[in-house]
Amino acid sequence: MGDERIWTAGLVVIGDEILSGRTQDRNIAQLAAWLNVQGIRLHEVRVVGDTTPAIVEAVNALRSACDYCFTTGGIGPTHDDITVDAIAQALGVGVVHHPAAMAILKAYYATRGGLSEARARMARVPDGAALIENRVSGAPGIRIGNVFIMAGVPHITAGMLDALTGTLEGGRPVVSRTIGCWVAESEVADLLRAVEKAHRGGGAEVAIGSYPFFRDGRTGANFVVRSPDPNAADACLADLAARLEATGREVVADGI
Amino acid sequence: MGDERIWTAGLVVIGDEILSGRTQDRNIAQLAAWLNVQGIRLHEVRVVGDTTPAIVEAVNALRSACDYCFTTGGIGPTHDDITVDAIAQALGVGVVHHPAAMAILKAYYATRGGLSEARARMARVPDGAALIENRVSGAPGIRIGNVFIMAGVPHITAGMLDALTGTLEGGRPVVSRTIGCWVAESEVADLLRAVEKAHRGGGAEVAIGSYPFFRDGRTGANFVVRSPDPNAADACLADLAARLEATGREVVADGI
Repeated sequence: MGDERIWTAGLVVIGDEILSGRTQDRNIAQLAAWLNVQGIRLHEVRVVGDTTPAIVEAVNALRSACDYCFTTGGIGPTHDDITVDAIAQALGVGVVHHPAAMAILKAYYATRGGLSEARARMARVPDGAALIENRVSGAPGIRIGNVFIMAGVPHITAGMLDALTGTLEGGRPVVSRTIGCWVAESEVADLLRAVEKAHRGGGAEVAIGSYPFFRDGRTGANFVVRSPDPNAADACLADLAARLEATGREVVADGI
Repeated sequence: MGDERIWTAGLVVIGDEILSGRTQDRNIAQLAAWLNVQGIRLHEVRVVGDTTPAIVEAVNALRSACDYCFTTGGIGPTHDDITVDAIAQALGVGVVHHPAAMAILKAYYATRGGLSEARARMARVPDGAALIENRVSGAPGIRIGNVFIMAGVPHITAGMLDALTGTLEGGRPVVSRTIGCWVAESEVADLLRAVEKAHRGGGAEVAIGSYPFFRDGRTGANFVVRSPDPNAADACLADLAARLEATGREVVADGI
């Protein structure tokens, strides 16, 4: 198990609207959950503005550091959509109009006023790229090497991820098991540390996360056991549950 | 205006729960909005997991690249809270128990079961640090140099930001003006580009963002004019509104 290949991904979220606080990002959580199912771990996210140097630097950093590099945002028809040009620059290739993308857009806009020059911008791809099917609207996503260029609008990206499902090589998905307890996490800090240490002892990859909350005037915490090995996760959870119950506190299966 | 000092900030969001998709981050948007009011621009965000090398690298990158570097997450009492140690390592300093933080925690836990060793972990700070008042719960935030260490729980971070309001040097806040239009953004791409270009002509820093949506079966877009100069933003918005109205489309003040 210790020699198992771990597949990783990075995400570059592109958009002034995220950095200005205007828009609440939804793509980080969406991509993270999707990657889990593919057996790929989201290793790092960078959020950068709509400027070429920032995009180039972030994409180059994460496509080197990770097996896969995803981007969201900046692939529409307007002047602030510079993702394709920036990524082409990062990869040192030119930008071309992809013939299949042109055909898709032509068909899509046939009943919507026709394919203008602005709309044809959405067929521009880094030279050598393949398309990712867009099941929601016209303009496709783009794949070049290990870089996946997705939309900024979350439900369009959801459709693109759906089209990619099962096509990327990954490892064993990380499973997670949650248990809740009406306790201040500081009261069980030593207990948590001891359980995690015990279950890592055999070389298994098991981690316990502690997420405190304050609700309806009561202090509680959820504890999340994560592991690529379901048996290791179950064993750790059972041990954790037993030790929490031994403190006399109320324990809630599957979290509070 | 062109010589005006622009103040920037970076944010490192720390936590496996964000990268696993379990938790939807709320701190990026919250910090971004708060920084705007301080006249500081959020330049880049990195989301990293609960591992020391990842935190060290991200903090060192952003504290060098930006005037201010904020972190959220990983400052609680449990084994997965490693932010303070990682940042001390990034800065090349030791970790000490801060006397004022010890006093705060002692008072806070006096009626909550006392100050255990686990709870006293929350008084640990990089050597040389100052405290940031926590107006919501016990454990304070931490400032050392240009690094600001905040909680992961959004409403606790909100209280810490409230305590910092007005204490950081910044420039002119970026103001934003929004206008909505029932139009596909691709139909007005040339118009947007022309308006932005015209208003940047005099050297003013003005940007137009285009944010399309599909709602109730209709296609629309919001356009956001951003500038540190309110007059430049107003002039650009008025021009944009006039040109959008001239297309015969329905234009909605303050956005749709």
